[in-house]
Amino acid sequence: MSGERKVRLGVIGSGKGSNFVALAQACRDAKLPAEIAVVLSDVAESGILKHAVDFGLPARFIAPGPFRTKLDESAESNYVTALREARVDLVVLAGFMRILKGGFLAAFPRRVINIHPALLPAFPGLASWKQALDHGVKVTGCTVHWVDQGIDTGRIIAQQAVPVLDGDTAETLHERIQQAERVLYPQTIGELIRKGVVKVAVA
Amino acid sequence: MSGERKVRLGVIGSGKGSNFVALAQACRDAKLPAEIAVVLSDVAESGILKHAVDFGLPARFIAPGPFRTKLDESAESNYVTALREARVDLVVLAGFMRILKGGFLAAFPRRVINIHPALLPAFPGLASWKQALDHGVKVTGCTVHWVDQGIDTGRIIAQQAVPVLDGDTAETLHERIQQAERVLYPQTIGELIRKGVVKVAVA
Repeated sequence: MSGERKVRLGVIGSGKGSNFVALAQACRDAKLPAEIAVVLSDVAESGILKHAVDFGLPARFIAPGPFRTKLDESAESNYVTALREARVDLVVLAGFMRILKGGFLAAFPRRVINIHPALLPAFPGLASWKQALDHGVKVTGCTVHWVDQGIDTGRIIAQQAVPVLDGDTAETLHERIQQAERVLYPQTIGELIRKGVVKVAVA
Repeated sequence: MSGERKVRLGVIGSGKGSNFVALAQACRDAKLPAEIAVVLSDVAESGILKHAVDFGLPARFIAPGPFRTKLDESAESNYVTALREARVDLVVLAGFMRILKGGFLAAFPRRVINIHPALLPAFPGLASWKQALDHGVKVTGCTVHWVDQGIDTGRIIAQQAVPVLDGDTAETLHERIQQAERVLYPQTIGELIRKGVVKVAVA
């Protein structure tokens, strides 16, 4: 019976959820042949969870445990369980500020993607728009990539260039990159589905 | 009497001279408010010297000395002398395959630029189009930068993004980047002159 349902996305984020909103709109407007099955966050008061509720989507805070930059083992297991219960075909990181370890990635082999606000391999890590501005580049952008255990090191799926303009501040540049992300992320996930790279795992 | 003559460029290259040809055409067609005062090469049979002769421009082979990746001290001094005799206001590296040391750079402070076939700081060094292809990026490009003593580390002046297309080989990607270089380099030098960053040093 595979193929009778849409590809199910599990979105995980820590922040305001601008990429999530773009994905939810694209699914709702049938521009992206997928549905969002669940939205998870490690931040109880995050914008992404509020937006998920506004879209009428299942949304859950799952406590991350005591560490600042990763999930502890039981938290990781809770995330995996929630995604599996939601029968998620693709895990979509959207501003999730923690590193995923091998246990999580082994549960979703080649089914976890992320978007990073720079043209990787340039400027991995935090606040990459500020790194780019400080370095003085004239072109930066955003990158959709498979997630591996490194920090922004996974294989690149798609990239979009974004110009740095005279007079840009970290804020104006970040906003311009985020505008590009909100187009690139739904478009790239759509292409992965249409090409059959991402497909319905369990009918 | 400063301003009565055009900005004089000294072009140095080791290869076929495709960027040189673009610069010479832009000067000839008055798209670039400059003139090429001298063309120097460390390779006697290089295309750049042949093209320079075709354009009727002064062209000289200057032996680089015994090293493979730099000029020896007396060679460096010969290059500096030739550029000074030609009253060069800006030294333009165009496919010059040797590192310039402090002595050369001190002779032309903030007056040496280079073009690199990648979006620096990504993929410095040799065959950067191949590095980009092997890394799997979807966007690469070219960068005009001031030359310092590092390898492709100087301050960035301008960049142009170039897409990597499905099915690209090192050759097809390199050619697409070079097309962008032939537009970006004359355009960037023109802007430096129009903004007064580069100007006539000796009338």
